[in-house]
Amino acid sequence: MQNTHLVILAGGVGSRLWPLSNNEHPKQFLDVLGCGKTLIQLTFERFKGIVLPENVWVATSQEYRDKVHEQLPEVPEANIIVEPCRRNTAPCICYVSWKIKKRNPRANVVVAPSDHIIVDVKAFKEAIKDCLEFAAETDAIVTLGIKPTHPETGYGYIKADLSFSSSRKRNIFRVDAFREKPNMETALEYVKQNNFLWNSGIFIWSVSTIVNAFRVYHPEISRTFEDIFSYYDDPEEQAMINERFPLCESISVDYAIMEKAEEIFVYPANFGWSDLGSWDSLRKHSNPDKYGNVAIGNDVNFYETHNTIVHTSMLNKVVVQGLDGYIVVEKDGNLLICKLSEEERIRLFH
Amino acid sequence: MQNTHLVILAGGVGSRLWPLSNNEHPKQFLDVLGCGKTLIQLTFERFKGIVLPENVWVATSQEYRDKVHEQLPEVPEANIIVEPCRRNTAPCICYVSWKIKKRNPRANVVVAPSDHIIVDVKAFKEAIKDCLEFAAETDAIVTLGIKPTHPETGYGYIKADLSFSSSRKRNIFRVDAFREKPNMETALEYVKQNNFLWNSGIFIWSVSTIVNAFRVYHPEISRTFEDIFSYYDDPEEQAMINERFPLCESISVDYAIMEKAEEIFVYPANFGWSDLGSWDSLRKHSNPDKYGNVAIGNDVNFYETHNTIVHTSMLNKVVVQGLDGYIVVEKDGNLLICKLSEEERIRLFH
Repeated sequence: MQNTHLVILAGGVGSRLWPLSNNEHPKQFLDVLGCGKTLIQLTFERFKGIVLPENVWVATSQEYRDKVHEQLPEVPEANIIVEPCRRNTAPCICYVSWKIKKRNPRANVVVAPSDHIIVDVKAFKEAIKDCLEFAAETDAIVTLGIKPTHPETGYGYIKADLSFSSSRKRNIFRVDAFREKPNMETALEYVKQNNFLWNSGIFIWSVSTIVNAFRVYHPEISRTFEDIFSYYDDPEEQAMINERFPLCESISVDYAIMEKAEEIFVYPANFGWSDLGSWDSLRKHSNPDKYGNVAIGNDVNFYETHNTIVHTSMLNKVVVQGLDGYIVVEKDGNLLICKLSEEERIRLFH
Repeated sequence: MQNTHLVILAGGVGSRLWPLSNNEHPKQFLDVLGCGKTLIQLTFERFKGIVLPENVWVATSQEYRDKVHEQLPEVPEANIIVEPCRRNTAPCICYVSWKIKKRNPRANVVVAPSDHIIVDVKAFKEAIKDCLEFAAETDAIVTLGIKPTHPETGYGYIKADLSFSSSRKRNIFRVDAFREKPNMETALEYVKQNNFLWNSGIFIWSVSTIVNAFRVYHPEISRTFEDIFSYYDDPEEQAMINERFPLCESISVDYAIMEKAEEIFVYPANFGWSDLGSWDSLRKHSNPDKYGNVAIGNDVNFYETHNTIVHTSMLNKVVVQGLDGYIVVEKDGNLLICKLSEEERIRLFH
C-alpha cells in the first residue's frame, strides 16, 4: 500500500448535464447521484484500503483547485496538480508521473477519471488490486475494459485477445487494438462479438513503466517534464510548469501511448460502470423504479410518467404528470425539460 | 360618479392554479399575467374614471385583510369588509349593500369578482357605464353576460330574451333563465343558439333595488344585516358581524336573488373575459405565440414545443424542449409539469 499511488483526473468541464453541470460547476464536483457526496468524493472513497491519502494526486485547473481542496481535505495540498491550460491527458499524466517517481521510484499507479460512477465497489476494488499486482510484477500497461451492456456509440472500444491471458493473472488479457467511438452499425457488430470492451479510461502501471513509455512513444512530452525534474516540490515548480506545459501537444494518453505501446493488457470488468456522459446513463444507473423513473431531489411525485429522470436541487416539491422519456433538471434556478432522445442537443440550449 | 360604488369580492381561495396559487396566496393577490400587477389591482384599475377610490369596497376574509390593504392602499381601511367565515356570496353582498345604503341611499353599485381578467378594458368600461345608467333609472338588476367563444362546461349560462330589449338601452335584454354548468352536449347546444351567454358574476344595481330584492327573496339574510343597521361604522360592528354572519345560510347571490327575481337584465358583452379557472384559460388569454405557447417568467426558451404554458417566479432560465399541450409552473420552489388535458386533477396532486 505504501507504494500505491492514485492519480485522479479532475480537469474536465461539463456541458452535457446542463443545467446540473456547467463550466463553473463540472460534474465531478457535484452530488450528481443525490447521495450526499460528489463524484470526486466517491472516486476518492472507492480507493480507501488500497491507496493512502498522502499517495493520492489530483490533476485539475487553477479554477477548480480550491474545490478539490475543499472536497478532498485529506489529500495533501502539494498533491494537487494545477494544469495551467487544457492539453488533454498525456501531458498531465506525464507530469504527475515524474512527480510520483521523484517521491517514490518504486510506485505503482492507478489513473482514474473523477466523474464516473461504479456500482459494485467491491468488484471494482478486486479488479484494481489484481491489476496493481500484475503491473508491479511486470512492465505491463493495464487498462480496465468494461463488458458492454448495449451497443453504445459514445465510448471507445478495446479489442481484447481472449486467447492470450497472462500466465500470472488469468483474467487479464492482451489488447489487440483500440477502436474509436463507432457508428451504430459497428457498435452492434462489436457487441455481438464478446471480445470488445468499453474503454473506461482507468489505467494501471508502475511509474517506471509509464515514464519509459513516454520516453519511447512521445519523447517531446517526456523531455518537457524530465528536464525540470529537479524543480519538483520546489517553490519554482509552478512557474516552470506554467512556462512549459502550454508548449505541449494536446493529446490523449490513449493516442500518445496506449495505441503505440506493445505490452498493453486489459482487465474485462463487470462492476456496473458509466462515465455519466448523458442524462440517460445517469437514469439507467440510478435504480429506476418499475416505470423507469428516477427522482433525485426533494419530494418528487410521478403520475402516469415513464422513463423520466427528475434531478432538482433548489425545489421543494415537484409533481410530474404525463411524461414519457424526459429529463427534468433544475439547478441553481435554471430548469431544463427535454426529451431523453434529444439530449445530445442540450449544449445548444444554454 | 359620487353615487357609484364598487364591491370587489376577494374572499376566494385558489387551488386550481397550484402551485401558482394556494390557500395562502389565492390568485387574486398574484401577478398571474406577469404584468407587474396582481389580479385585484387590475380589477381596481379597470374602474378608474368610473368609481372613486373612497367608494370602493372589498369583501375578504381576516386572513387576506392585510393583503388587500397592501395591494390597494387607495381603498379606505373602513371599506374592507371582513367576513368571519365563508358563506358564499349572498350574505356578504347583503351586508355590504346595507353598509353602502347607510353611507349613500342613492348609490348605484357594481359587484365584481377580484380574480377575473378582461382583455378590452375600454369596451368593459362602456358596458359598465351603460349598465350603471340603466340600473340608476330603473329597478333593474343587471348582469354582464359574455358571448361564448366555445362550448365551455365550466361556466353557468344566462338565457337572454333577445326579442325583448330595454326601451332605454337597446343592448340590454331581459333574462329568460339562468342555467347551471352544462355537460358538453348541452354546452354545444347553447353555443349553437345565439341567446346563451356566460354568467360573468358581475352585477349592477341600485342599492335600494338589491336591498329590496333581499327583503323579498331572502328575508332571513336580509333581517340579519338590517337589524344591526345602527352598528355600521361603529366600533361594535365587527363583533356583531362575527356573531351573526356565521348563522347565515351559505348561498350564492345567483340562487338567493337572481333566479327568483323578475326584473333581471343582461348586457351581452364581448370584451374578452375569463375567470382564469384553468391553466388553459390563462394560456388562451395571454397572447400565445404562433405555436400556441405562453411564457410568463424570466428567460423562457421553447424548442419544438406547442400549446404549452410556462409560468415561473423564482427561476432564472428555463428551456423546454419537445412538449405539446403542457403546463409548466414554478412558484416558491414548487414545480408542476402536467398535461393541459389533465389539469382538472391538479387539486389531487398537492
